[in-house]
Amino acid sequence: MSLTYRDAGVNVARAEDALSRVKDRIARTRRPEVIGDVGQFGGLFASPGADKILVATTDGVGTKLELARLLDRHEVVGADVVHHCVNDALAMGAEPLFFLDYFATSQIDPGVFSRVVGAMADACARSGTALLGGETAEMPGMYAPDTYDLAGFLVGVVDREKILGPQRVREGDALVGIPSTGLHTNGYSLAREICARRAMHERSASLLDVLLASREELGGGTLGASLLAVHRSYLEEFRALRGAAEIHSIAHLTGGGWEGNLPRALPAGMAVRIERESWEVPALFTLLAKLGDLEEVEQFDTWNMGIGLVVAIAAESLDAALAAVPGGVALGEVVPHSAGRRVVFG
Amino acid sequence: MSLTYRDAGVNVARAEDALSRVKDRIARTRRPEVIGDVGQFGGLFASPGADKILVATTDGVGTKLELARLLDRHEVVGADVVHHCVNDALAMGAEPLFFLDYFATSQIDPGVFSRVVGAMADACARSGTALLGGETAEMPGMYAPDTYDLAGFLVGVVDREKILGPQRVREGDALVGIPSTGLHTNGYSLAREICARRAMHERSASLLDVLLASREELGGGTLGASLLAVHRSYLEEFRALRGAAEIHSIAHLTGGGWEGNLPRALPAGMAVRIERESWEVPALFTLLAKLGDLEEVEQFDTWNMGIGLVVAIAAESLDAALAAVPGGVALGEVVPHSAGRRVVFG
Repeated sequence: MSLTYRDAGVNVARAEDALSRVKDRIARTRRPEVIGDVGQFGGLFASPGADKILVATTDGVGTKLELARLLDRHEVVGADVVHHCVNDALAMGAEPLFFLDYFATSQIDPGVFSRVVGAMADACARSGTALLGGETAEMPGMYAPDTYDLAGFLVGVVDREKILGPQRVREGDALVGIPSTGLHTNGYSLAREICARRAMHERSASLLDVLLASREELGGGTLGASLLAVHRSYLEEFRALRGAAEIHSIAHLTGGGWEGNLPRALPAGMAVRIERESWEVPALFTLLAKLGDLEEVEQFDTWNMGIGLVVAIAAESLDAALAAVPGGVALGEVVPHSAGRRVVFG
Repeated sequence: MSLTYRDAGVNVARAEDALSRVKDRIARTRRPEVIGDVGQFGGLFASPGADKILVATTDGVGTKLELARLLDRHEVVGADVVHHCVNDALAMGAEPLFFLDYFATSQIDPGVFSRVVGAMADACARSGTALLGGETAEMPGMYAPDTYDLAGFLVGVVDREKILGPQRVREGDALVGIPSTGLHTNGYSLAREICARRAMHERSASLLDVLLASREELGGGTLGASLLAVHRSYLEEFRALRGAAEIHSIAHLTGGGWEGNLPRALPAGMAVRIERESWEVPALFTLLAKLGDLEEVEQFDTWNMGIGLVVAIAAESLDAALAAVPGGVALGEVVPHSAGRRVVFG
């Protein structure tokens, strides 16, 4: 009998079926700059003008994917990957323009695919971002059954004179923190390891038991639900802050936590002093830290600890900034850096 | 003992070490439009003017990754992913501007990473494309040991009045084919399945034996070497053709082969008639087809069969086009479509 591509595990028709299920939701992300239809070799988007700067970001979701699969919450990671990219772009001062995704799996499950990409399209629509294209890769044997990987690419735009960054930051700048919704999309390997060890520790408990147990510390909620909160988009808060305060730079607290990200928003020779009491670390983090017997420095070097975005602003803008962003926290200030760590907790 | 992120399998320092090994090669891809340094939350690139159109593409390498790993040829896939994106962009008429990559694995091997991303940077430099950013994801347990996935994202630019596409194509347009270097980056699951079945068939032969056997049909070469030829970039040929002929549309023959891609370059109601004798199908394809006992339609629906790019041009440009692109082939012409397949071999 002769062999076919389908025999080898690749079914082009199945991929097309999967895509057709989310066509309408993708169409709703269309912006006036988009030219032509989906299905071309490249997506077309009218350029914003030579006085503008394009900002390009790429992000994944990490092993939060494993939890989403285990708990059947595929929509979460679809929204996550868009919001992660949007937040990285706004950290440079940019508004999002368009997004492309990469979805890779061993064998496409059209149901799962449409839940992921549908949620991705909805997140794009909410943030005014055109979902301009994507690649759906069916790679037999590359991924374990039912698993998939996901990456996003986003291009945004900022006026040249409005690019945010370390070069704007001055000693004495105030730091405004905006709460996170949980781990966002970073530090899940550590969180999962903690849960897995807990399961081993408690005789006859499975990872699922640990994730689904009602926890007093979480107000009766579960670790699973808390860990699968959507990585929030800070686009509205960014716009409100931009209108109210003089923003200098923004750190999006992702992989590497505080010490891994705050220095990216600081010039050489500067550090930050953070008032550790200015916000309450959410119960999810303290519970995970307790279960894993984690040292505090390890927690802050891995997780956002309840603050997803840190915005450095002119000190005189602080009151206006806090008024513009409900939930915003006065975290501390920019100080000279002498030696050692650049995030100092006081 | 308290747990750390490193215990959970994620080593941020290892990722940074891996990146530092290719920093210089990435720096050589810099273009005048690039603003600031690597390591920001987003890459900055001065926008082309408002009269220009951005073209965005995203691609992976598929299970060619498995062969590259098996035969220790990681440089190949790094160049592949760039060239795949460049070719998709030029199919819209665009020149490349910048590229970002996504590299995902369970545990980063700095040696492998630097070979892949180094080759990627070199391919970017050769095509004048800035390597503007990337995401390196370490996801313990997500990937089998030593495996990784790779995706690329490219933004190019084209003048609004020079966008190529189906809308330009007319009945009687000539089709110029440009040779491929092999399977490029598509149809590897089928090729691998053929080799795997062959290994099962030949007693005591492994997949590696099949890949490394000298083949008379390949002039003494091996399937492994032929399958790991780099997906060629058609950028130079595109530029030469653009200068010599009136290009209407371009089909990049990737996943789905001829019938899966040529219609993307055709308006409704049009088809192509291809002279099957106008080029010789390379030995790699005929050998694989023989080993797998593949029907011809299956071959053409999966692989490029020796032609990687098909360019539809004004018929009167044909001689000039063939003179401009050494190795170019007069494949056939655009004809009205009645029913059924849109690629008809005559």
